[in-house]
Amino acid sequence: MDRAVESVDRGIDRERVQELYLSTLGFSGWQLGNASAIAAEEFGHPGMPAVRVENACASGGFALRMAVDAVASGRRDLVLVVGLEKMTDVSQARRRYWLGVSGDTEWERLAGLTFAGVYGLMAARYAAEYGPVRDALSEVAVKNHANGALNPNAHFQKPISRDQASAAPAVAAPLGLYDCCPVSDGAAALLVAAPETARQYTDTPVYVVGSGAGSDALAIQSRASLTRLDASRRAAEEAFRRAPFERKDLDFLEVHDCFTIAELLALEDLGVARRGSAARLTLSGATRIGGRMPVNPDGGLKAKGHPIGATGVSQAYEVFLQLRGGAGSRQVRGAERALTHNVGGSGASAAVHLFSTEGA
Amino acid sequence: MDRAVESVDRGIDRERVQELYLSTLGFSGWQLGNASAIAAEEFGHPGMPAVRVENACASGGFALRMAVDAVASGRRDLVLVVGLEKMTDVSQARRRYWLGVSGDTEWERLAGLTFAGVYGLMAARYAAEYGPVRDALSEVAVKNHANGALNPNAHFQKPISRDQASAAPAVAAPLGLYDCCPVSDGAAALLVAAPETARQYTDTPVYVVGSGAGSDALAIQSRASLTRLDASRRAAEEAFRRAPFERKDLDFLEVHDCFTIAELLALEDLGVARRGSAARLTLSGATRIGGRMPVNPDGGLKAKGHPIGATGVSQAYEVFLQLRGGAGSRQVRGAERALTHNVGGSGASAAVHLFSTEGA
Repeated sequence: MDRAVESVDRGIDRERVQELYLSTLGFSGWQLGNASAIAAEEFGHPGMPAVRVENACASGGFALRMAVDAVASGRRDLVLVVGLEKMTDVSQARRRYWLGVSGDTEWERLAGLTFAGVYGLMAARYAAEYGPVRDALSEVAVKNHANGALNPNAHFQKPISRDQASAAPAVAAPLGLYDCCPVSDGAAALLVAAPETARQYTDTPVYVVGSGAGSDALAIQSRASLTRLDASRRAAEEAFRRAPFERKDLDFLEVHDCFTIAELLALEDLGVARRGSAARLTLSGATRIGGRMPVNPDGGLKAKGHPIGATGVSQAYEVFLQLRGGAGSRQVRGAERALTHNVGGSGASAAVHLFSTEGA
Repeated sequence: MDRAVESVDRGIDRERVQELYLSTLGFSGWQLGNASAIAAEEFGHPGMPAVRVENACASGGFALRMAVDAVASGRRDLVLVVGLEKMTDVSQARRRYWLGVSGDTEWERLAGLTFAGVYGLMAARYAAEYGPVRDALSEVAVKNHANGALNPNAHFQKPISRDQASAAPAVAAPLGLYDCCPVSDGAAALLVAAPETARQYTDTPVYVVGSGAGSDALAIQSRASLTRLDASRRAAEEAFRRAPFERKDLDFLEVHDCFTIAELLALEDLGVARRGSAARLTLSGATRIGGRMPVNPDGGLKAKGHPIGATGVSQAYEVFLQLRGGAGSRQVRGAERALTHNVGGSGASAAVHLFSTEGA
């Protein structure tokens, strides 16, 4: 939260912030409740209205959506979005349960299906429908590790080779160790303001020009397909419905790569790659920084890490840096329009936001 | 959810609902996650954006606030708010922990202070500052049980006497058994629409004309006073700031009486009674149905019950019934303007809404 306030170009009085939207799956594995009030108090403005938004791994994207609504309603003109997760101070057993309940319980969790297992099924099915996918999965991991190595806030800052990724021990076949995001601690914060308010504090605001969300059946057996997340498709459709630009105008994307296969699905679900073409697109290098459509320049969930409640917020923070030209060695040249994509559970919910250097 | 849809006078197509705001502390004591997606699926519109809002016992009030923002933003014109809690299908030990974490952990919960204990301290301090309070606490219980007896959806539908209330076994002195709300299962749902949309479905919509929220320090030792909840005061101030009427124009209130003392504090915090005068006001009969300022005509948390996530939503449902003249034997005659007040934890957060039969 401190950095969100400090990164405002002309400084800001905390008492000026009107509401706080906290995204977290639950402090310390649910060991502390009433989290939004704690966050307001720690921010140093304990009387401020504060609310917790929780949508599994998509909590951050939905908290941003609520904040954007609040400002668009005209009732508030400056609000704070905070995403955080402290995942490592609970036991692995507790963490498994804490995370596991975000998937279907009756038919998946209690039958032993983990999140890696669900995405492993998706990867296997994707390969069955569209052909071999191992190289493309490894390329996602290699690219995101390379990007993470350029991000001083990334959990993993070391590049890996495609051979390392492909030869890694299996976690849930066909997914191996480097196909899975790590367990991370982390936090991110954003100030969301009405345009005229934002311009009081900076000459280079970043505009939110689209917001979309969608849901799907929780259990994968109840879904239409294993090779797409319809929640993502719906979220993108809503976000672009009134947007001032089209998919082809995007300069980069931050997508929810909790597993490498998820990045491939995202490109297709969001409509930037045709069905079955994401592997080829990825292997072409198009999604690297410097490519035609960079994806996850901050390292993504794979290398930056996936502190649950923080992830969706930190995606927007990366966009904020990039669209202001402040992303350093991982800067996407001339980036002016970007998309963030945050998924909950194994695709039961998704939030998509569009950003631009120009207001709508 | 079914009843929310059915109570719309001209019926409604579920696919027409654009977003779902789910208020719950957590399905079955956190045994099922990703609750908002489950709710969208059960509603029969699984693609609909859905988000969970959790602010301890104030979750319902904050979910309504998010829904009102969404509609006021102009981005959606028909959304659904669902509040629910199934409190009885977890063990008492688990339930104690699940509820307990909504208070301060380090200085209260781990030291053995329960929520009844916190409100017991407030009641003792209130008596020390303003004089004997036992009769007024009992009158709150008697009144709310009498109102609950007129509400077919109330958990307790039996009247009690003031002697019964005063002679009940102590729970946390000075609070006895009848000063405490019960552990209840329950759910409530609301459709929130833009005015022009609402009028497509009914000739008698109820308008939300004010929304306010506030926070306070989580630990009671960090607060300015034990005899007021500043979160409630702040929430009321925000709600009335742009409201089309004043406190004196209210026809009734739904306040958060998790313990009887909380109803007295609420009357003062909301500004409808002067400091130290709520006991006298209550004993005068003014807060009974038929009195000058009826409070909790549905029976309140005390008699209707307090299924955590449902409470704030069900308060607004009571307002919906009353302002349309449909509250049957507990109808507040000629009710046109009302207030709901929903508190989280022991006062760490609060949401207040104002309603009217006329648009702002």
